[in-house]
Amino acid sequence: MRSVSIIGIGQTPVGELWEHSARQLAYDAVSSAMADANVERVDALFVGNMLSGSLLDQEHLGTLVADVCGLHGVEAAKVEAACASGAAALRVGTMAVASGFHDIVVVAGLEKMTDTVGKDTTAGLATAADAEYEALHGVSFVGLNALMMQRYMYEYDVPLDAFAGFSINAHRNGARNPNAMFQEALSLEDYVRAPIIATPINILDSSPVCDGSAAVVLAPTEWAHKFTTGHHRGAVQILASASASDTLAVHDRRDPLFLEAANLSGQRALRQAGIRQDDLDFFELHDAFTIMIALSLEANGFAQRGEGWRMADEGEIGIGGRLPISTMGGLKSRGHPVGATGIYQIVESVLQLTGSAGGNQVAHARLGMAQNIGGSGATIVTHILGS
Amino acid sequence: MRSVSIIGIGQTPVGELWEHSARQLAYDAVSSAMADANVERVDALFVGNMLSGSLLDQEHLGTLVADVCGLHGVEAAKVEAACASGAAALRVGTMAVASGFHDIVVVAGLEKMTDTVGKDTTAGLATAADAEYEALHGVSFVGLNALMMQRYMYEYDVPLDAFAGFSINAHRNGARNPNAMFQEALSLEDYVRAPIIATPINILDSSPVCDGSAAVVLAPTEWAHKFTTGHHRGAVQILASASASDTLAVHDRRDPLFLEAANLSGQRALRQAGIRQDDLDFFELHDAFTIMIALSLEANGFAQRGEGWRMADEGEIGIGGRLPISTMGGLKSRGHPVGATGIYQIVESVLQLTGSAGGNQVAHARLGMAQNIGGSGATIVTHILGS
Repeated sequence: MRSVSIIGIGQTPVGELWEHSARQLAYDAVSSAMADANVERVDALFVGNMLSGSLLDQEHLGTLVADVCGLHGVEAAKVEAACASGAAALRVGTMAVASGFHDIVVVAGLEKMTDTVGKDTTAGLATAADAEYEALHGVSFVGLNALMMQRYMYEYDVPLDAFAGFSINAHRNGARNPNAMFQEALSLEDYVRAPIIATPINILDSSPVCDGSAAVVLAPTEWAHKFTTGHHRGAVQILASASASDTLAVHDRRDPLFLEAANLSGQRALRQAGIRQDDLDFFELHDAFTIMIALSLEANGFAQRGEGWRMADEGEIGIGGRLPISTMGGLKSRGHPVGATGIYQIVESVLQLTGSAGGNQVAHARLGMAQNIGGSGATIVTHILGS
Repeated sequence: MRSVSIIGIGQTPVGELWEHSARQLAYDAVSSAMADANVERVDALFVGNMLSGSLLDQEHLGTLVADVCGLHGVEAAKVEAACASGAAALRVGTMAVASGFHDIVVVAGLEKMTDTVGKDTTAGLATAADAEYEALHGVSFVGLNALMMQRYMYEYDVPLDAFAGFSINAHRNGARNPNAMFQEALSLEDYVRAPIIATPINILDSSPVCDGSAAVVLAPTEWAHKFTTGHHRGAVQILASASASDTLAVHDRRDPLFLEAANLSGQRALRQAGIRQDDLDFFELHDAFTIMIALSLEANGFAQRGEGWRMADEGEIGIGGRLPISTMGGLKSRGHPVGATGIYQIVESVLQLTGSAGGNQVAHARLGMAQNIGGSGATIVTHILGS
C-alpha cells in the first residue's frame, strides 16, 4: 500500500452564508486547496456531503463540483455517511491514492444548510437516524442526543453544568479562528443561562446549523516534497485511516452510553499508525453536542467510563492542556456544516502539525487524531496524521 | 496494486415491489451474495444508491444496510453518482481491496422508487441533472433525453422507428431472465404503437421506475480459489475499473451527441485491462433510453458517429450477434432501479463469464464490459471483467 500525504488545504469561513450557493462554496474550497498544493490538475474528486438531495434537490454532487471547478473528465463521486460524510470521503480518496488507481486526488466536504427554500433542515438531519424506527416516531436528532445525555447524567450522577467547560473551551479557541462561525468567548454564566432546546441539552451544548466547505489535496508521500517547495508549510502524512459502524438506532445498542464504533475505529487507527494513544498531541473530536465529547473521550480510552465529563477543564483539554481538543473551535464554535465537518477537522489538524495554527498552536504538535461521527454514533471514522 | 475478483453474487427480482422495504431488498441481495461466496463475515460494505434521501427520508444508508445485514462493526458508506451509483460503489469497493485496506468487501446497489409515500419520483430523478440550470426550468430527466434524441434524429436524418430493434432485443433477452421486470417479448408493431411520453421518446424507448437490489462480494484474486470450491461457478476477475465525468448540464457540452465520459472511461478501462475493444465478447451498456444505446456504441468506438442506430438488429446485438448487449434484458426489460443498476450489470456479467446465463448464454464468453451512466452522460463508470 502506498503511503498518502496531504499536500494542500482549503476552507471557506463557516456561517449562515446566504449569499453563497453550495457550488460556490465548493469551488472556493477546492480551488484554494489546489492553489495551496501547487497543482492545476487532479485525477479524481470525492465529495463528502449528506443533505444535497434532501435540502437542495441536487444529487450527482461529485460531478457537479468537478464541473464547477473546471476539472473536466476526472473521476467524481459523492460519499455519504451522515455527519461523517467528510471523513468517509477522505477514506475513499486515501484508498484511491494508496491503491495506485490515482496519484493526485482532491477530497472536499460540503454542506449548505441555510437559505434552502421550502425545506426542513431538522427533518433533513433526522435522515441520519433510522427512518422507520426512530424518525417516524417524531424524535429529532437533538432529541436522540438529549436522551443519551439524560441517561448519562442519571447513570453517573452528573450535574447539569458539568459539561460547561467543553463549550467554554471550544469558544475560547474559536474566538481566535478567523473561519469560525462564533468568534466570541463564553462564560460559565452564559452557559448556565442558555435556553434549553431539548432537555437537558441547552443551545450552548449544541453545534449550529450552518454552511461551509473545506478541501484537501492528496498525493503519494514519496512525491509530496515536489509540491511543497518554497513557502509551503509542508506536507502531512496520513498515518492511519479507519472506519467502523454500530447499529443505526440508539435503542438497538448493547450499551447506549458506549460509542463502540469510536472504540473500534480508534483502535484500528492506532494499530495502523503503530502508536499508542498517549503519543497523540491533540484530538479533533466530534463535539456536535457536549455529551458526544464525554462519550468520545471515554470510548477512546482517554477517560474511564462515566468520567469523561471531568475533563471539561482548561488544564485537561485547553491548548496547553493534557489533551487539547476542538483546537480551532470544534463543531461548537467553528461550526458544523455536516458533510464538511470531517474535512474541516483534517484541515485544522494540518494547521496544527505544520505550526500554522496561530494563537491556537499546540506546542510541538507532531501526531494528531481526528474523529468524525455520523448519526448518534453509528458511523465513526478516525484518521491519524503526522508531520 | 492487488488484483481483485468477484467471489459471490446476489440479486432480488426487479419490479414494483410494494411489499418489500428498501432494507429488506438490501438484506436479500447481500445475504444471498455472501452465501454464494461462502463468507460469513466481511470487512466493509459499500452501498450504491441515489434516492434514499429524496424518496425515503433515509440517509446514512451504508450503515443502515450493514446493521440490517448483521455486519456489526464493519466499515460502511453510501456512494452516490446518480444512476451510476452502483458502479461508483464498486469502484470504491475495488479500491478498498486493491489497496490492501480490506480483504473481503461486499458492494450492494439498492433503489426503492415505488410506494414512496408523498414523494415525487420524477422530481427525485431530476436531481441527477443540474438543479439550477436544468431542473429549475422544469425539464425532467426524460425531457433531457428526448432533446438529445430529437437532435440525433435531426442531425443524422434518422427515422423514428430506427431505435425499435434495441427495445426488441432487450425484451427478447429479458423474457428469459427470471429476475427481469418485463418478461415478455416485443414486436415492431408494439413499438410503433407505443404512446409517446416526451417527443420523440415513447414508453418502449424508456426503462421503468422500479425497485431492486443486487450485490457482489470482492476478494483478492490470489485468494479467490479458496472461496470458490465445490459447486461454485468460479470467480471472475475485475480486469479494469475506471470512471470519468463530463459537464453536469447537457447544454454545457462541447457536443451534446458525444458521450465524452463514456469514451474516456472506456479507453481508460481498455488500457488497464490491456485488451482491445474487439476482444470483448459482450457489452452490458446503460440502455435507460434507446438514444443512450446509440450514443454509447458510438462513444466506445463500436460504431461510427451517427451510425450507432444501425446496430439495432439481432445480427449485431443479439445473443449470437457481433456484440451482444443487454444480455439479460438490460435496463429496459430487466428494469432500472437506478442506484442498483450498475451492480445488476456486474452480476449479469458474472453469469455470462461463468457459463451461468441459461438461455441467454453468450457462447465462449471470456471478456465482458459493463458501463453505467449517471445523469445524461455526466458520470460514466466502466468495468471490464474476465473469467
